[in-house]
Amino acid sequence: MSSATAQCTSGIRALVSGQVSFLSPKLDVIRVSEPSGCESLKMNMYSSSASRSSCKGRGTGVAALPDADDFFWEKAPTPILDTVETPIHLKNLSPKELKQLADEIRSEIAFTMSKTQRPFKVSLAVVELTVAMHYVFHAPMDKILWDVGEQTYAHKILTGRRSLMHTLRRKNGLSGFTSRSESEYDAFGAGHGCNSVSAGLGMAVARDLKGMKDHIVTVISNGTTMAGQLYEAMSNAGYLDSNMVVILNDSRRSLQPKLEEGPKSAINALSSTLTKLQSSKSFRKFREAAKGVTKRIGGGMHELAAKVDEYARGMVGPLGSTLFEELGLYYIGPVDGHNIDDLISVFQEVSSLNSTGPVLIHVVTEEVEKSKDCKSEKTVSHGGGISLGSLTSNPKLTDSNIYRTYGDFFAEALVAEAERDKEIVTVHAGMRVDSSLKPFQERFPEKFFDVGMAEQHAVTFAAGLSCGGLKPFCIIPSTFLQRAYDQVIHDVDLQRIPVRFAITGAGLVGSDGPMECGAFDITYMSCLPNMIVMAPSNEDELVHMVATAASVDDRPVCFRYPRGVVVGSSHPLCNGIPLEIGKGRVVVEGKGVAFLGYGVMVQNCLKAHSLLSSLGIQVTVADARFCKPLDIDLVRELCRYHEFLVTVEEGSVGGFGSHVAQFISLDGQLDGRVKWRPIVLPDNYVEQATPQEQLALAGLTGHHIAATALSLLGRTRDALQLMR
Amino acid sequence: MSSATAQCTSGIRALVSGQVSFLSPKLDVIRVSEPSGCESLKMNMYSSSASRSSCKGRGTGVAALPDADDFFWEKAPTPILDTVETPIHLKNLSPKELKQLADEIRSEIAFTMSKTQRPFKVSLAVVELTVAMHYVFHAPMDKILWDVGEQTYAHKILTGRRSLMHTLRRKNGLSGFTSRSESEYDAFGAGHGCNSVSAGLGMAVARDLKGMKDHIVTVISNGTTMAGQLYEAMSNAGYLDSNMVVILNDSRRSLQPKLEEGPKSAINALSSTLTKLQSSKSFRKFREAAKGVTKRIGGGMHELAAKVDEYARGMVGPLGSTLFEELGLYYIGPVDGHNIDDLISVFQEVSSLNSTGPVLIHVVTEEVEKSKDCKSEKTVSHGGGISLGSLTSNPKLTDSNIYRTYGDFFAEALVAEAERDKEIVTVHAGMRVDSSLKPFQERFPEKFFDVGMAEQHAVTFAAGLSCGGLKPFCIIPSTFLQRAYDQVIHDVDLQRIPVRFAITGAGLVGSDGPMECGAFDITYMSCLPNMIVMAPSNEDELVHMVATAASVDDRPVCFRYPRGVVVGSSHPLCNGIPLEIGKGRVVVEGKGVAFLGYGVMVQNCLKAHSLLSSLGIQVTVADARFCKPLDIDLVRELCRYHEFLVTVEEGSVGGFGSHVAQFISLDGQLDGRVKWRPIVLPDNYVEQATPQEQLALAGLTGHHIAATALSLLGRTRDALQLMR
Repeated sequence: MSSATAQCTSGIRALVSGQVSFLSPKLDVIRVSEPSGCESLKMNMYSSSASRSSCKGRGTGVAALPDADDFFWEKAPTPILDTVETPIHLKNLSPKELKQLADEIRSEIAFTMSKTQRPFKVSLAVVELTVAMHYVFHAPMDKILWDVGEQTYAHKILTGRRSLMHTLRRKNGLSGFTSRSESEYDAFGAGHGCNSVSAGLGMAVARDLKGMKDHIVTVISNGTTMAGQLYEAMSNAGYLDSNMVVILNDSRRSLQPKLEEGPKSAINALSSTLTKLQSSKSFRKFREAAKGVTKRIGGGMHELAAKVDEYARGMVGPLGSTLFEELGLYYIGPVDGHNIDDLISVFQEVSSLNSTGPVLIHVVTEEVEKSKDCKSEKTVSHGGGISLGSLTSNPKLTDSNIYRTYGDFFAEALVAEAERDKEIVTVHAGMRVDSSLKPFQERFPEKFFDVGMAEQHAVTFAAGLSCGGLKPFCIIPSTFLQRAYDQVIHDVDLQRIPVRFAITGAGLVGSDGPMECGAFDITYMSCLPNMIVMAPSNEDELVHMVATAASVDDRPVCFRYPRGVVVGSSHPLCNGIPLEIGKGRVVVEGKGVAFLGYGVMVQNCLKAHSLLSSLGIQVTVADARFCKPLDIDLVRELCRYHEFLVTVEEGSVGGFGSHVAQFISLDGQLDGRVKWRPIVLPDNYVEQATPQEQLALAGLTGHHIAATALSLLGRTRDALQLMR
Repeated sequence: MSSATAQCTSGIRALVSGQVSFLSPKLDVIRVSEPSGCESLKMNMYSSSASRSSCKGRGTGVAALPDADDFFWEKAPTPILDTVETPIHLKNLSPKELKQLADEIRSEIAFTMSKTQRPFKVSLAVVELTVAMHYVFHAPMDKILWDVGEQTYAHKILTGRRSLMHTLRRKNGLSGFTSRSESEYDAFGAGHGCNSVSAGLGMAVARDLKGMKDHIVTVISNGTTMAGQLYEAMSNAGYLDSNMVVILNDSRRSLQPKLEEGPKSAINALSSTLTKLQSSKSFRKFREAAKGVTKRIGGGMHELAAKVDEYARGMVGPLGSTLFEELGLYYIGPVDGHNIDDLISVFQEVSSLNSTGPVLIHVVTEEVEKSKDCKSEKTVSHGGGISLGSLTSNPKLTDSNIYRTYGDFFAEALVAEAERDKEIVTVHAGMRVDSSLKPFQERFPEKFFDVGMAEQHAVTFAAGLSCGGLKPFCIIPSTFLQRAYDQVIHDVDLQRIPVRFAITGAGLVGSDGPMECGAFDITYMSCLPNMIVMAPSNEDELVHMVATAASVDDRPVCFRYPRGVVVGSSHPLCNGIPLEIGKGRVVVEGKGVAFLGYGVMVQNCLKAHSLLSSLGIQVTVADARFCKPLDIDLVRELCRYHEFLVTVEEGSVGGFGSHVAQFISLDGQLDGRVKWRPIVLPDNYVEQATPQEQLALAGLTGHHIAATALSLLGRTRDALQLMR
């Protein structure tokens, strides 16, 4: 614990501040040399007063980029960790050594992760938990299932991947999530949250059917306790009554996302319950209570003493534990998540018992406490991708207009609309609030509803708001809107209820890889009969589409935009003007080949246009704007005057291109009049990499599009030249 | 109550037994004249001994079709109901008159519904509840939101639709669900269950923002308490604390779907809780307890006395109420759902209180009790569509081979596979277990997991079973698999985990209309990179695909089949032989035009082939079998030797046809070599009708397909002739 060296000195600062490079499809690297912010790197539970004051001093001294946090420091020695290659090497360590190991892991994570420019506090908070789990349970024979990717860094370090941690989230590197293909210690993929109990229960039942005896240990977080699937899973676990251990990693931070004077946030009833649990006086008395309880679990006592037990725990234990009991899980806790001795003794007792059915161990970790003196960690978007919003929503930054994301433009446009139209409200679902939405949240706190990780509810709730006479914008990332697909169909589209879906994180998402990729939304939304499906080609179009969505009040609308940064975004917000529904536009007129782009791919079509121009070829570039209703006049026009029609979209097969093909086929245009070529995302999951690398992997760069045109025109050599 | 006339006499029996006609795409009408089974039509809580014995006698006397249940009887007089056109006419009725009204409505429902050949006991059970709600609350100003369609018949009768009840579920008739476009009294569409609290909360919040004062009353059922969305919604309601009333309609039947010596069924922990609630001794003391409780709600007492209150209710009230309390809802109950006086007094107290936040009223209804002496009601599939399984899974019927559904063939094939392969298990999600699965459930009770209305959990649970070394078949209707789309993507496809999805209810579903239509699954499944997507063209192919799915163990598989009856299904089950992955077949060789059908549409292509043959045109018909991976050799072959390629599928745009188009475009086949025409479901929701009517509406009959070919061949007059 003493070996960690947290130095708030200014060292070499070649690192990228603000985690930008992997976000922008346009900016390859942004280097901001301003020293900025700080993060406590102390390995203790609390920062020492020395580092605290130095952090404070620096934090106030540097106002321009208050949230960035990277420091240079030397790697601390890790004598114990150096002896641990896999969990088996933990088994003979003493309690004291385990504690030191935890400190060393924390040091290792902080050192490695600060270089990778990724948030990592969540992982720091569960180091003791991870060590205790791997000490007591025998992975990979015992199965350990995590909840979200950021928790798993200590787990990765302890399971043979320490030397690869610097490759995390890079091309060909370690995944930011758990991955069955990456390690046999990763029993299941953790990514979208809330799936661990379902998968773990499946494994527990399979184990029982096969007559095996291994343990199943699943982790959940308080951020995911809002998710319906977790309830379904816990309820079914309680019914099936297979032995399994559910560990609730209750980090206080997620419970109370504090905005200064912010609006009522997404905390649900269960979260309040957890808050009550935490503040329970019996928290410190955990060991006595827990031991007493676990001893009562085994044998026939369980059934007999259930009622008595419930009351007993109602008295000594915390209010709220009964929720888990009602679901059929045996509640133990709360346990101090940083006390390895306690964790080990609880895990050992639980693992030694037979026939207890599912047990929930409530573990409280303290990630906020450890950094409360510094600026809080960079806001991360749903599921772990870093958002630039925390930077850009800062008024000073916005004024200086360094860069803004599509999300920023969206939020500003929505505020402008809401100023005009009192009926506009927003519903947001996600693990954490997308920080780019802050302007709306601050301006209209009573009209901003964040429901947490409850996408299904979010969509139907928005439908209800619409039925009640309001104009809801429902903001959900593409990859998480999949979780509410049935609600989109039956509670919105089938009933033709005007809900406006702002689909964020559309297309490739860089280092978040396939786990968060918004590949399918064009396909799964545009097959719905009543839905208007559109996508802006740039930030001005996005503003117009916000106005369009606000103006449509007889049917649902959706529009998608990517995570990326907008280049040249210093211009003021344009005035949003509703677009004519189902009307695209020709951006550049040419001949021979027409590129019909959908969404931001129009920009890549324009890049291709430039490349081709330099070769003396003038192609047409059109911006479809709408996938549905399709601009059939525009499509017919393109068919009439071109030999080739190339549709380009950052989405899977079955989307925009398919709708164009369907139309031109039925219209007879495909009967020898025009030759159609679709460019879509490839039929595989595009692995994590930088956005540029991903676009290249996907074949969606300007070069690829231009090369396609050259091939079509028979200039194969030029095409090859271009792709060199 | 005395006016109901339930006569177990044999009257005119022109009605269709077995509710077949709307199910079969092949059999236009099946008339079975055998008198059979019985259903108690007594309007009392319990059948009189007279009707009981007569039912028994008949039930045992007629073994051939034991479950069919229709009788002829005379319509009872309905003097009170005749005065009620809309709920306003209820307001001046006396308690005694309200009770009689309830009886009259029950009589009316039984009379009307027995003619429509639909299950209606669920609606009978909530008659008093419906009357009490409309007596106390002021719809349409107050919003009443239902949970599932079958509950709403009394509601429809009381809200101006009485004279149209005989059109229920017919073409151009009343919907079997609630529908905002049908009536202003239908505040929201009830269909897939579990959405009422989300939508109601949205309306409550909108009301508060607009400064209105109307009441929001939402109904939920114990069948839907397993659904995650309901948990998300209740939790959010508890947090937002808007005034709303949630009524839990707790019918014992759904709680305990009893199979004779059947396996452990889908009851989850909450359901057990409800069972405990029902058996609570304090049930009969309801009025005292409830009144005491409600009086304590108002004013400052709520906050102050919360803890005291909780314990108080813990003593006098039932175990389990705390679950709702934990979610933030104020629990009242259980209330006898057939006691109008009690219901009215509770509703009045609740509606007169202000600022109570969400209140949950637990109402117990008794639909099972009323028919326990007769054969149980026909098993209905998920969401209300009648399944033939209950008839056909009867061994006697199977032996006599009158007809079998695709579901029956699936279940028999799966049993055969499971006999060979010990690792095969099944996971089923849905409101009720599809009765065609009974053979598997009975043969392998320990390998059959029904998780109830928890599709998200079902999919990830199946993934866990697969990771644990088993071979799960996950059986979910197309329309409900939408609720687990994200889990299919991230917990199965992305991780390439071999889960075998049997997608039931694929395509049009007759009288269940758009609410249950399986229109989108080809589109939303075939865009997933690792998924094998296939569909059988007939029952033998289905058996082979079960074998195929069992044999694939390195990636996920899905196959879809419709609800319909298989004609000529008297032949024994063929021996399932795994198909070569990605290989289709030519069924009939011809020239000029090639029909490439997907799934059962191959049969309609064959019908078109016959029609065209009679006109001297010999077309090719091919069975694609696989949408993914596509049989590119077959497609190339068809392109090479035909002028026209027509793809035919019973699914939305973006599916099979789009995958074919994508391939032939990139392969250069579309550049003047072949002309492609896609036939898909139209881009609108196909309204309820008989399957034949729906197919005609959708343009998917053999006639339509043949007419398309004639048009392509320039024989427009013949095409018109054909469609006359």
